[in-house]
Amino acid sequence: MSKSPKASLSVVRRLPRYYRFLGELEASGVQRISSREFAAMIGVTASQVRQDLNCFGGFGQQGYGYNVAALRDEIGKILGLSRQRRAILIGCGNMGLALAIHMRFEDRGFRLCAIFDNNPAKIGQQASKWVVHDSTALESYCKQNQPEVAILCIPKEAATSLCEDLVKWGIRGFWNFSHYDMSVRLKDIAVENVHLGDSLMTLSYRVAELEEND
Amino acid sequence: MSKSPKASLSVVRRLPRYYRFLGELEASGVQRISSREFAAMIGVTASQVRQDLNCFGGFGQQGYGYNVAALRDEIGKILGLSRQRRAILIGCGNMGLALAIHMRFEDRGFRLCAIFDNNPAKIGQQASKWVVHDSTALESYCKQNQPEVAILCIPKEAATSLCEDLVKWGIRGFWNFSHYDMSVRLKDIAVENVHLGDSLMTLSYRVAELEEND
Repeated sequence: MSKSPKASLSVVRRLPRYYRFLGELEASGVQRISSREFAAMIGVTASQVRQDLNCFGGFGQQGYGYNVAALRDEIGKILGLSRQRRAILIGCGNMGLALAIHMRFEDRGFRLCAIFDNNPAKIGQQASKWVVHDSTALESYCKQNQPEVAILCIPKEAATSLCEDLVKWGIRGFWNFSHYDMSVRLKDIAVENVHLGDSLMTLSYRVAELEEND
Repeated sequence: MSKSPKASLSVVRRLPRYYRFLGELEASGVQRISSREFAAMIGVTASQVRQDLNCFGGFGQQGYGYNVAALRDEIGKILGLSRQRRAILIGCGNMGLALAIHMRFEDRGFRLCAIFDNNPAKIGQQASKWVVHDSTALESYCKQNQPEVAILCIPKEAATSLCEDLVKWGIRGFWNFSHYDMSVRLKDIAVENVHLGDSLMTLSYRVAELEEND
């Protein structure tokens, strides 16, 4: 297999899961764990865990396993979770509001700084602890406050026309809920497309598969 | 590589993406496409596309490529998208409401039949076109109406205690937004865990990676 960015992205995508499980172990007082036990808990193979962590230097000790707190700490550093990068949320419908209220941005590398919407009924209103700004103020806000990441909770058409401007105004990363596959068209930006519909279609397949095994 | 369910799941997870892009092609009047062009559009290799589709019998024709409408149709059948399996939504907070309002369940294999919450202020209220039922009615509802899938938009603790009962009452599939890794503990059910926080942490890594390349 060629050394594609794809391959390393799939390792990166597993790290948050490792981080999350290590947090649970730590919370329940576990101080160390073998790669085998850890892998079983997560549902991957021990060699997968070792390989993945070796990409970043490896953290286990032969015959000891992993120190839970130390490994969690290291993975958190690799993921940059203490960076508090400035993020803005665009689109304050139910999904946007759900994220603003429930997502612990500050534990995941970001600080949610401002919320924007183009609906006059929402502009100026309070959304959780933020006041909703008018989307027409995006350019001046970005230039003054230099947020790095935009969370898009707007329809596909709106996202399509907006995202190039956002890049021009300094946005480097997108958390994209808009059903628009952005990475395909824009380079040198980081995009996480969240396609909830894809996940639902996968579930459809998997339920059918269960039936066949009945 | 062994024939693990993991490997085939990663193929399955790509199918909704193929389906989505084929829909866009169809909507813009494209009738056929080579595997190379299709792969470039999606951002994978042509051999990946061919390999993935070969798992289900293969659909291309040497020198012709894929018939867009026919391939989309076939993938839709593989995913079971016309099945209209009965689904219930548990937890009518912002996330649950966002899903109820915006998710086109019927295009993705499901029909949302009922919504449940345990908050007295919500019970009996209208949520989009559904009336919110009391969660205490879940058992009788499941026994009478036999929904196959539950969408969990409730806190982790609530999900942990509820999901075994739901399985007992006939639920076979979970679309799980509750930060609880269910598949690890329950067998013979299909679970799609949606960990939005993991996606956000991945974005954190990828923005940092861009910086390093500057």
